[in-house]
Amino acid sequence: MPASNLFQHLSRRQLIQLGLLSGVGLAGSAFGINLLAQSKNRQNVIVPPFDIPQTKDAANPAAVLRDFDYGTVTQENGRTVREFRVEARTSALQLNQSTSFVTWNLNGRVPGPTFRATQGDRIRVIFYNKAGHSHSLHFHGVHSAEMDGVKPVKHNAVQIYEFDAEPFGVHLYHCHIEPISRHVGKGLYGMFIVDPPTPRPPADEIVLIMAGYDVNDDRKNELFAFNGLPDYYMKHPIPIQQDQLIRLYVLNLIEFDPVATFHLHANMFRVYRTGRTLEPSEETDVITMGTAERHILEFSFHHTGKFMFHPHQDYIAESGCMGAFEVIANSKA
Amino acid sequence: MPASNLFQHLSRRQLIQLGLLSGVGLAGSAFGINLLAQSKNRQNVIVPPFDIPQTKDAANPAAVLRDFDYGTVTQENGRTVREFRVEARTSALQLNQSTSFVTWNLNGRVPGPTFRATQGDRIRVIFYNKAGHSHSLHFHGVHSAEMDGVKPVKHNAVQIYEFDAEPFGVHLYHCHIEPISRHVGKGLYGMFIVDPPTPRPPADEIVLIMAGYDVNDDRKNELFAFNGLPDYYMKHPIPIQQDQLIRLYVLNLIEFDPVATFHLHANMFRVYRTGRTLEPSEETDVITMGTAERHILEFSFHHTGKFMFHPHQDYIAESGCMGAFEVIANSKA
Amino acid sequence: MPASNLFQHLSRRQLIQLGLLSGVGLAGSAFGINLLAQSKNRQNVIVPPFDIPQTKDAANPAAVLRDFDYGTVTQENGRTVREFRVEARTSALQLNQSTSFVTWNLNGRVPGPTFRATQGDRIRVIFYNKAGHSHSLHFHGVHSAEMDGVKPVKHNAVQIYEFDAEPFGVHLYHCHIEPISRHVGKGLYGMFIVDPPTPRPPADEIVLIMAGYDVNDDRKNELFAFNGLPDYYMKHPIPIQQDQLIRLYVLNLIEFDPVATFHLHANMFRVYRTGRTLEPSEETDVITMGTAERHILEFSFHHTGKFMFHPHQDYIAESGCMGAFEVIANSKA
Repeated sequence: MPASNLFQHLSRRQLIQLGLLSGVGLAGSAFGINLLAQSKNRQNVIVPPFDIPQTKDAANPAAVLRDFDYGTVTQENGRTVREFRVEARTSALQLNQSTSFVTWNLNGRVPGPTFRATQGDRIRVIFYNKAGHSHSLHFHGVHSAEMDGVKPVKHNAVQIYEFDAEPFGVHLYHCHIEPISRHVGKGLYGMFIVDPPTPRPPADEIVLIMAGYDVNDDRKNELFAFNGLPDYYMKHPIPIQQDQLIRLYVLNLIEFDPVATFHLHANMFRVYRTGRTLEPSEETDVITMGTAERHILEFSFHHTGKFMFHPHQDYIAESGCMGAFEVIANSKA
Repeated sequence: MPASNLFQHLSRRQLIQLGLLSGVGLAGSAFGINLLAQSKNRQNVIVPPFDIPQTKDAANPAAVLRDFDYGTVTQENGRTVREFRVEARTSALQLNQSTSFVTWNLNGRVPGPTFRATQGDRIRVIFYNKAGHSHSLHFHGVHSAEMDGVKPVKHNAVQIYEFDAEPFGVHLYHCHIEPISRHVGKGLYGMFIVDPPTPRPPADEIVLIMAGYDVNDDRKNELFAFNGLPDYYMKHPIPIQQDQLIRLYVLNLIEFDPVATFHLHANMFRVYRTGRTLEPSEETDVITMGTAERHILEFSFHHTGKFMFHPHQDYIAESGCMGAFEVIANSKA
Repeated sequence: MPASNLFQHLSRRQLIQLGLLSGVGLAGSAFGINLLAQSKNRQNVIVPPFDIPQTKDAANPAAVLRDFDYGTVTQENGRTVREFRVEARTSALQLNQSTSFVTWNLNGRVPGPTFRATQGDRIRVIFYNKAGHSHSLHFHGVHSAEMDGVKPVKHNAVQIYEFDAEPFGVHLYHCHIEPISRHVGKGLYGMFIVDPPTPRPPADEIVLIMAGYDVNDDRKNELFAFNGLPDYYMKHPIPIQQDQLIRLYVLNLIEFDPVATFHLHANMFRVYRTGRTLEPSEETDVITMGTAERHILEFSFHHTGKFMFHPHQDYIAESGCMGAFEVIANSKA
C-alpha cells in the first residue's frame, strides 16, 4: 500500500495550519515529489519470482518480504529528506481458518512498512491516527526527547516525528502506549533500516519479523508468525537463488514470550549484531534474540531444495513461526 | 548505612575467639581504620544533584544509584585489604501503596551494598547472619572452594569470606541457600565491581540492578524493579549531564523469569560483556541478559530531556522495571 | 554401547537390497572395519578416574561425559568416511526414586552418542527406527535438503543420512518429527562435534547437555538434567585435574523453557560461540543459551575442591540441572 495514497485529504497547507509542520525545515523543498530511491544493494541480484495469490488481508507476508519503503524524497538545504506518511488503523486479520484477530496496524498491514534510509538522511514520519484510540510511534535509534514517541497521539490527531537517520543498523518502531505488550501484540510495529554511508555488498535482502498473537487476551501467545501470518512461508516457501548472498534483516517482536532464537536449517549464517557493523562478529545457525533485538544474518545456499527456518523454541515454531526457503538452481550455460 | 555501624558488639578479639579470624592474615594490620578509597573514576565528572526525599525504607534507589562501598582499607604485608562488614536481616519493604513485602537483605537494604575493589586487592567480607534463619554469601569471580559461599551460615553465626578480587569486571553476590530462587527473590543480592589495574576513563558511574518480586509465593513475579523499588526512577528520573560519558553497571537478578533485556531509549550504548574488556564488543540499544548476567554499558546523551530505560520484555517493564534519565543541559559560557 | 553391536541382523548386502546403500560410494571400501580414531586432543591430559557404579539405565551420565563416538572409519576414494549405526528405541528411564519416564532415545541412551569427526570427513549415519513410531535425525551443520532429516522414518524402516562434516564447531542432532518439542523432550537428541583441521590444544574434554523432562505432559518441565539424569553430578562430582585445561562442549536442549544460562562457580570461562572459532570471543561465568545453542567453554581450576555448575535460572537448577566438579590436586614431586 503506497504511502502516496494516504493523507489525500490533508494538504501541506492544512498540516501547517494544524501547527504540525512549523519549524521542521520544509521551506524551499519540493514537497510531495516521490523520488523512489534506487536500491544500490540489488545490482546484479537475482530475485526469483514469488508468484502467489495476492490478498487484501491486513497481513501479506509475500509483499512484506522484500518491500522497502524509501519514502518520498526531497532535498532540503542540501540534505536528503525522506518523508513517510502512515496511518494507524484498526482492522481484522484472518490468522487461520478459525481465528480472526483485531489488529492495530499501520497502513492496513502487519507488520507496518519497512522504512529505509541512509545514515544522515532526515526522516519525517507523518503519523495520522485513525485507529479509534490513542497510539504513538516510538523509533529505536538516536533522536530528541520530543521525537521519542512516548506521548499518546489521540484518535484523529496527526503527529510528525522528525529526526536524523542514525546510526546505521537494523532498528524498529512500535507503538509505545501502555500496555505496550498489548499495543505491540496487536500489530503496531515495523522495521526501520538505516544503511551505512557506503552500502553493504549487493544481496537478496529479506525482512523477517517474528511476532506473537495473544488471541484470547490471557497475556500468552496462542499463535506466532513471520511477517504477520502463521505458517505462511511453510505453505509458500520463499524462493532464493543458489549461491547468491542472502541478507536477512531479522527482528524479534514477540511479546509475552521473553526470547526466541532464529534457526536456519542445513546452513550457517554470519551475524551482524543490530546491523551495527560491516564485519560479522560470529557465525552460527541458532541465535538468541530477546524482544526488540534484531540482527543482520548473511548466508548463501549451495545446495538446492527446501530448507526450513524457525525459532528453536519449538513450541513457538509449532504454533506458526515457521517458514522455508526454496533454493532455485542456477542454470549454468 | 555505613558498615562501621555494624558489629559494634563484636570486637576483633571476639571474632578471633570464635575462630573466625584465624589464618586470614590480619597480623600487623590496622584493623578498623576506614580509608575511604578515592574514586579516580570521577575526576571532572559532573554528577547533577538528585535531591529527593530520603526514606528509611529497605529499598532506597536514590542512594543505591551511585553508592560504591570500597570497604575499610588496610595494608597487610604490602597489599591492599578491603574489609566489608555486612549483616543479613529480615525487614518489610513497602513496594507500592498496597503491597508490603518481607525482604531478606544485607545491611537493611535491597539490593545490598555495591562492593568495589581493584583487581588484586584482598577482599574480606565479614558476614553476620541476623536474619532469623540460614543464609550465605556466594560471590561470582575467582576464589577457593571454602570461600564459595554455598554452605549455610546459621542465624546469629558469623562467616568470613576472604579471597582476591579477580578478575576485573562486573560481578555479583547473592545468598546460595536453596531454594536459591527464593533467597535471591527475597532480596539477598548485590553487585561486586572489580576495577582493572588501570582505571577506566572518568565517567558518571551508575548501578542498575533488575529484580523481581514474587509477592504471593506462586513462583512468578508480580512486581519488578530497578534497584529495589518498582517504578521509582519513573517518578524520580535520574539526572545526568549532557554530553558526559555515562557508565552503567547493569545486572539482571530477576528470578523465575528466565531473561530480560535492557533497552535505552533514543540512544545506543557500547557493551563491555561482564565488564571483562576495556574495549566494547558491540553497540546496540537492546541487550539480552539471562539471570546473573551483567555488563558495562557506556553512552552519552547529546539531546536533553527525559529518556526511558526498561527491559523490552514489556510485561516486565509494565510491572515496575522502568525508569528514566533526565539529561541536564550543559550551561555553556 | 558400541555401534558395532547394532544392526547385527542387517548385512551390507541386505542394506543394498533395501536400496539404502546405492550411490553412497561404498565401492572398494573396507566396510565394517572399526578404526577407532585416536584423539589427538588428549595427549598428556590427565583424566582422573570416575569410578562410580555402572548402571543399565537409559541415562548414564558417567559414560556420556567423556564418550566420543568417532564411528567406524574407512577410506573411500581417498577421503575419510565415518559411519555411525544408531537405533531409535523406546525405553523407560528412572529419573529419580519416584519418577519413571518413557524415553525415545538412540542406542538406548539419553542423550544419544556424541558423534565426532574432523571437518571435511564424510559422515554416514545409518538410522534404524525401532522405536515404535515415526522419528528422524535432523543434524545441524551444512548438508543437502535430502539429508536434512525432516522427513519421517517409519517404525522398522532404515534411513541413511550422509553429508560432509562441515563446518567445524559444536553441533547437534535431534528428531525433527512434530511436535518437535515432544520428540526432543522425550530424549531423541545428541551432540555432533566437528573438529577443525588443526586440532584444538590438548585438554580434558567434557560433554554437558542440558535438557528438561515434561513428566506429566503439561508442556512444562518438572525435572531437568545434565546428560540425562537429574542431580547426577551433584551426587557424583566430576573429577578434574588442578591447573589443567578443561574444554566443555555445552549444549542447551531444554524444550518449553525458552533459555538457560550456564554458570560455573568460582571461576571464569572463555567462550567459543558455537565452537566456530579458534580464539575466544569473551570471558564470563554466566552465558545465556537459547534452545539448541551450544558453545565451547574453556577454563582451568587452580583451587582444589568442589565447585558447582548450573543454569542461573535457579528454578531450573533446583529441579535437577545442577552438578559439580571435584578438582583433584596435582601431586608435585
